[in-house]
Amino acid sequence: MNTERLSINQITVKNSSFEETVRGLARHGIGWLGAWLGPVREYGVDRAAKLLREHDVQVSSVCRAGFFTGENPDGGGLDRAANQRAVDVTAAIGGDVLYLVAGGVRDDLDLEAARQAVIEGIAELVPYAASAGVRLAVEPLHPMMCAERSVVVTLDQALDIVERFDPAHVGLAVDTYNVWWDPNLYAAIERAGERTISYQACDWLVPQPHPLFGRGIPGEGTIDIPAITRAIGSAGYAGPIEIEIFNEAVWATDPDDVLSTITARFGRSVLGPASGRSQAREEPVAG
Amino acid sequence: MNTERLSINQITVKNSSFEETVRGLARHGIGWLGAWLGPVREYGVDRAAKLLREHDVQVSSVCRAGFFTGENPDGGGLDRAANQRAVDVTAAIGGDVLYLVAGGVRDDLDLEAARQAVIEGIAELVPYAASAGVRLAVEPLHPMMCAERSVVVTLDQALDIVERFDPAHVGLAVDTYNVWWDPNLYAAIERAGERTISYQACDWLVPQPHPLFGRGIPGEGTIDIPAITRAIGSAGYAGPIEIEIFNEAVWATDPDDVLSTITARFGRSVLGPASGRSQAREEPVAG
Repeated sequence: MNTERLSINQITVKNSSFEETVRGLARHGIGWLGAWLGPVREYGVDRAAKLLREHDVQVSSVCRAGFFTGENPDGGGLDRAANQRAVDVTAAIGGDVLYLVAGGVRDDLDLEAARQAVIEGIAELVPYAASAGVRLAVEPLHPMMCAERSVVVTLDQALDIVERFDPAHVGLAVDTYNVWWDPNLYAAIERAGERTISYQACDWLVPQPHPLFGRGIPGEGTIDIPAITRAIGSAGYAGPIEIEIFNEAVWATDPDDVLSTITARFGRSVLGPASGRSQAREEPVAG
Repeated sequence: MNTERLSINQITVKNSSFEETVRGLARHGIGWLGAWLGPVREYGVDRAAKLLREHDVQVSSVCRAGFFTGENPDGGGLDRAANQRAVDVTAAIGGDVLYLVAGGVRDDLDLEAARQAVIEGIAELVPYAASAGVRLAVEPLHPMMCAERSVVVTLDQALDIVERFDPAHVGLAVDTYNVWWDPNLYAAIERAGERTISYQACDWLVPQPHPLFGRGIPGEGTIDIPAITRAIGSAGYAGPIEIEIFNEAVWATDPDDVLSTITARFGRSVLGPASGRSQAREEPVAG
């Protein structure tokens, strides 16, 4: 079983504490964690770094900083200090990729101005992140999240931003759920090349069980994830592959079962066959 | 009040019968209807044509034919005969624009093949529609509908299809709700030029009250509808503007109140000010 590149995002086992998550990953032979700031802070940043080292689990990415438009579904404007603290935590736990979420539409409904604010906000954060050795990952979210969370919604648009910066400091994050529908998907992946610094995989369920939490374990939905994995690999990305799943049924399942299922399916449903773009849909892990 | 171009889509007053809808439009001085096949058939196609003439209401478009990928959320594969009957109904009630919905992803998860099937399906329907004097309108749906309803999800992608055909027979349908998030929106509208043959306006509500029925009356959400209206006008479209709203709270409101609100707001929230791209959000009509 080739699961060397498998990373589990903390949200996939949302109801597990940081400590339970790290111990669970180690138990399942999974060497990477996609961390979230909240659980890390709750456990304690220094303790978290120590726990990760003890269990030989590396941080594939940290979620998240950003909201450069000043619009955040949780309220509050652009918080520069919080973004810098996110950089600090990322570095402290040995991470070198920090996800950015652009922020939503502002009251003036001016998308162009909001998008310009994202570029300016990133430019402002780059020196701080660079000096901490943390790369900022620009992630296009699904267009259905444009209003509330991210005015950055396509790979090409994200690349237009990323290409303004030194690739040592700013890169692209690709999440299958967010980008699979894009008619320009494969061209954009090729265009990104080694500027892709993080890759997350999860599936699109039909029907979507929830407007935000409709993501499935790879193999359960409508996305040809192996084809995307191969394209990203051909373009130059060889890093960890994070499984990030927002799904209430998955959250209600025993985390050990979730990790077992993901590990067992990873080869076929994420890495995929050597050729061909089709796969049978798998039985869902939960609900 | 400049409401000459105002059209009401049948779905906006979903709980009104065809007859109630036509009489309501006439009562409110609204000269255009975006018709749906079901209510027209229920009332009777010939009677419907007569009722429209008697009330001086014209058909701005008919919804819908398509599902060329063979995937339809209501089940069933590609139904060529049903598509031809949709053309017949459109012509019979004096319409000359028939909306096409592409269809969703197939079991092989191959988006490219599904998109090719859409092109082939349209090509097959064109001669029949052309001989009936009906133009086929290719509508990109929002990417969140890619899996189940439409593998055509952006204006540029729809234009790549439309441009394969004679503009007398196939054109583009622009719906603000489906396309507002697109970073290439204004360039695509300009590219479309007079190939845009139908324009629908509705707003994106925050939060979305329902994954499918989250559309608001113009002025209630996050879309700068006047800016899009102006861009479409500059590109050459001067036809009716349909208000098409999927929203349970709107459906639960007295249809006369809905028509009054839309009519009252049409000038400001759809046609918009002569310049400037911002507008205050308006109080919702319901719920």
